[in-house]
Amino acid sequence: MSKSEKATKALIERLGADQVATSKQERYAASMDNMRYSRMPSARIYPEDEEAVATVLELANEFSIPVTTRGAGSATTGATSPSENGWVLDFSRWKNIHIDPVARMAFVQPGVTLEELDQAAADYQLSYPPDPGSLKHATVGGTIATNAGGMRGAKYGVTRDYVLALEGFLASGDFVRWGANLKKFSAGYNIRDLWIGSEGTLGIITGAVMRLVPRPPLRATCLAVFPDARTAIECSQQILRTGTTPSALEFLDSQTVACTFSFWERKHPHLLDDLPQCLIKWKDKETPAILIIEVDGHQHEVETAMQGVLTTVKQATSDWITAIDEKTAELLWKVRRSCSQAMFELGPRKLNEDVVVPFEHQLELLDFIENLHRETKLPTPTFGHAADGNFHAHIMYDDASEKDSIKAREAIVRLMDKVIELGGSISGEHGIGLAKSPFFSLQHGAAEIAAMKAIKKALDPNGILNPGKLWERSEPWSFPRESVRMPWDH
Amino acid sequence: MSKSEKATKALIERLGADQVATSKQERYAASMDNMRYSRMPSARIYPEDEEAVATVLELANEFSIPVTTRGAGSATTGATSPSENGWVLDFSRWKNIHIDPVARMAFVQPGVTLEELDQAAADYQLSYPPDPGSLKHATVGGTIATNAGGMRGAKYGVTRDYVLALEGFLASGDFVRWGANLKKFSAGYNIRDLWIGSEGTLGIITGAVMRLVPRPPLRATCLAVFPDARTAIECSQQILRTGTTPSALEFLDSQTVACTFSFWERKHPHLLDDLPQCLIKWKDKETPAILIIEVDGHQHEVETAMQGVLTTVKQATSDWITAIDEKTAELLWKVRRSCSQAMFELGPRKLNEDVVVPFEHQLELLDFIENLHRETKLPTPTFGHAADGNFHAHIMYDDASEKDSIKAREAIVRLMDKVIELGGSISGEHGIGLAKSPFFSLQHGAAEIAAMKAIKKALDPNGILNPGKLWERSEPWSFPRESVRMPWDH
Repeated sequence: MSKSEKATKALIERLGADQVATSKQERYAASMDNMRYSRMPSARIYPEDEEAVATVLELANEFSIPVTTRGAGSATTGATSPSENGWVLDFSRWKNIHIDPVARMAFVQPGVTLEELDQAAADYQLSYPPDPGSLKHATVGGTIATNAGGMRGAKYGVTRDYVLALEGFLASGDFVRWGANLKKFSAGYNIRDLWIGSEGTLGIITGAVMRLVPRPPLRATCLAVFPDARTAIECSQQILRTGTTPSALEFLDSQTVACTFSFWERKHPHLLDDLPQCLIKWKDKETPAILIIEVDGHQHEVETAMQGVLTTVKQATSDWITAIDEKTAELLWKVRRSCSQAMFELGPRKLNEDVVVPFEHQLELLDFIENLHRETKLPTPTFGHAADGNFHAHIMYDDASEKDSIKAREAIVRLMDKVIELGGSISGEHGIGLAKSPFFSLQHGAAEIAAMKAIKKALDPNGILNPGKLWERSEPWSFPRESVRMPWDH
Repeated sequence: MSKSEKATKALIERLGADQVATSKQERYAASMDNMRYSRMPSARIYPEDEEAVATVLELANEFSIPVTTRGAGSATTGATSPSENGWVLDFSRWKNIHIDPVARMAFVQPGVTLEELDQAAADYQLSYPPDPGSLKHATVGGTIATNAGGMRGAKYGVTRDYVLALEGFLASGDFVRWGANLKKFSAGYNIRDLWIGSEGTLGIITGAVMRLVPRPPLRATCLAVFPDARTAIECSQQILRTGTTPSALEFLDSQTVACTFSFWERKHPHLLDDLPQCLIKWKDKETPAILIIEVDGHQHEVETAMQGVLTTVKQATSDWITAIDEKTAELLWKVRRSCSQAMFELGPRKLNEDVVVPFEHQLELLDFIENLHRETKLPTPTFGHAADGNFHAHIMYDDASEKDSIKAREAIVRLMDKVIELGGSISGEHGIGLAKSPFFSLQHGAAEIAAMKAIKKALDPNGILNPGKLWERSEPWSFPRESVRMPWDH
C-alpha cells in the first residue's frame, strides 16, 4: 500500500466515506482547473465542518500529503491542479451567506459564488463589485486565493479591496482569524493580506467577512469603435485624464473583435443580427478596435459622467452607441463576454497572459504584441482593462505543429520580458499557479523570492499546502490539455 | 568601549559624521514619540541615500544593534521609541514627490508629510484622503508603518487602501520592491501589505507609490447636538442605514465637549465667541454629545447627500447647523481638532486607546465606558469615528496619586477585555507599539502570535528591526512621561 493510499485510508476512518470521495470520476473532475492540466489526486475531500479540515491537515502533516484547496476550479493558471496522489479539499458546498446591511458587510463561506454573493447583497440595495468574467462560477474562496480582479476594477478595485477578515487554518491545523468584522484593524501583522493571493499555499480559508458597497441604481454603457488600437487607447487615457472614473473601460483589439465575429457566425449567428450599426458597418472592412465604457451611480452622476465620456469619444470617432437600459447594455457587453471563448477560432491551443503595464507604456506593449503577431504569423488577440493597464494577451497556435509550438513559446517569453522591461507585472488578476511560474524570477529578484520562501517555510514547514506552484518552475507549454467540457464553456 | 559605541564609531567611519548625529540634543529629540517615553539611542542617522541604509543594516547585523525607523515621531504608542543605545534611522529629510496625474499615482519618499502629499496632489485636482489629526506632521512612511486611519475613513478608508507599492530594505540589507506603479498586481506573496502596519519590524521603507483620487470639489458639514451619546450614535447609524456614505462621521461624547469648552475658556477664549448658536445654548446646561457629519463630491452629490443627512438628523434633534463654505466648516471642525489636547484639562496623564467594535455593539461599548467613569470617578472622555465603530477612549488621571494610577490601569484593562468580548480590535489606527502590548494576547490567540513570530524570525533572523514591540509585553502605565513641547502641541 502506497503512502497516499495509507493516508487516504486513515482519513476515511476518521471522517467517513461521505466526506472522502475516491471514485475515479470524482478524482478526475478535481484533477484540474480551467487550464485543463490533469493530475490525479488520491481523494477529493468534502469537509463537513471546521473539525474535518483540522483532521485533514493533521493527517496531511503526518503522512506528508500535499493538500490543494478547491472552489469551482475556474482558475486559469493550474493553481488548482493538485499534486499527483495528493488531496483535494473541496469547499464548493460551503455556501452560507449572512448580510449585515448597516455595517455593509457579508459573512460568507468560501464556496459561495460571486453571483450568489452579489444577489444576496442586492436584497439590501448593496453590491459586491468584483466581476471576473466567471462570476457565475468563481467562488469567494478561489477569488481571494488569486486576488481576482475583473472588469469593474477601474472604479471598484480588486478582491483584496473587499476582504475585511479571513478565518481558517494554518498548515499546522491551528485555527486562526485575521482581522474581524470591523472597518479598521491595526493590531499586529496583517496575515490576512498575505493569505490573499497566496494561491492556497499559506493557509486554508473557511470563512470571510467581505465589504459591500451601496448598489449603484443606474449604469450607462458606451461602445465605441476605432480604426486601430492606438486611437482607442489614446481615447481611454483621455477619458481618465478628464477626471471621470468609469466603472468599466474595456479594450478589445481588432484580432479579438474579428475572432468574436467569426465565432458568432459559426456558432451563434443570431447574435450578429443584434450588432449595433456602428459596429456592423465595420464588419466587411478591416476589423476595428473597440472600447466599452460603463459609468454607474445615481442618475445625475451617470448623466454627467457619460456626457464627459461622450465629449472625449466624439473627438476620436464617429462610431459609437450608448445604452441606458439593461437589455441594450447587455447586447453591447456580449462582444466582451464572448471573446475569451471565441479565441479558439484562431487555434486549438492558447497561451494566456494577464499582464499589467504602467499607463504610459500601454501603447508600447500593444505595439510589441502586434509586432509579435507580424513576425510569428501566430494570432495574438488581446483585450483588457484599459483603466488598469491590465491586458489579456493571447498567443493562439496549433500544438500539433512542433514549429508553431516553439514559436508560441518563444513569443510568450519575449512578451513577458517586455512586460518586465516596461515595469509591469506578469499577472494582474489570475495569479501564477503553474502557467506563469517560468516568469516568476523575471518579476521578483533573488532577495524577494528568498523572503517569500522564508515565509512559506515559516507558515508551512512541511510544505503540504499546494506545493509546486509560484516560484517552482513548470513547463506549462508542454503540459497536455484535457478535452473536457467545463460549466463555463459556451 | 561598549558594543554600541564601537558600532557607532564604525558607522561614522563608513558614512561620515554628517549622516550620523550623536549629540545629546539630537539623540534626545529622537528618543521618543508622542507617547513621550524616552529611551536614548546611541545615534540618530540621517541616511543620504539607499546605499547608506544598506550600510546601516550591514553594521546593525554585525554588531547586533537595534534599528528604529523614524519619520516625524508623531506616533502615539511608543512604536518610535528606540531601544536604549540602539540606532534611530531618520527619514524626515526624504522629501521627494512626483505625481502622475493620468495614472493618479504619487511616487513619494517616506519623509513627505500627508499635508505635503495632499497639496502636491491638489495641483492636479487630485487628493490624498487619509487624514489622521496629525496630517501636518505625520509622514507617509510613519503612517504606512502604523496603517494610520483618521477622520475620513468613513468614505475613504485607511492608509493601506492607498499604498500601491513599497520599496526598501529587508533586515538583511537586501533591497526589495513589493508591487509596482500598477493598479493590479497578483504575482506572488503580498509582502507589501505585510509591511504595512508592521511598525518597522519587518523592513525599512525608502519609497512608496500611493494612489490618489479625484479631488472632491465641494464639501458640506453638519454639526448636530444631542442630549446624550445614545441619541447621537443611533442617529449616526440611521444615516448609514439610509445608504449615505459621509466622508466623515465624528462622534464626541459630553465629557469631550465639556473639556474642550473649558480648555478654550482657559487658553483660547476667542474661540468661544465663534461657537454656533445650537451649541452655545447647551453651554450652561448639561454638556451634550455631538456628531460632525461631512459629505463631499460634486455639487449635486453633496446636496443630495446633505439633504438625506438632515432628514435623519432632524428626526433626532432640533439643534444642528450646516456649513458649505470652508471658513464656517472649519469653525465647526474646531471642536474636534482641539479635543485631543483639551483632555489634559481633566488630568495630567492620559491612557489613550483607539478601540474598534462592530456596529451593533457601539452603544454597549459607550455605556461600558460611562460606567467605568461612574465607578472609578476618573474622567473617560471618548470621541471617534462612528462610521468605523472606531473610538478614542481615554482615561485621564493624576499619576502623582498611586491610588488613581492603579484605578486607571485597572479600568483600562477592563475596557480592553470588554472590547475583545464584543469582537472588537484593541487598535484601529494607532498600532500597538509599547502602549498596547499588554493587550496583544487578548487580541490574538497563541497560534496567531506564533505565526507572526515565525514571520518575524523568517524576515529578521537577528531581530534588529525595532525589537521589543507588539507581542513583547511592556508596562506602559509605569513609564515616565517627558515634559517636552512637541510641534503639534497647541
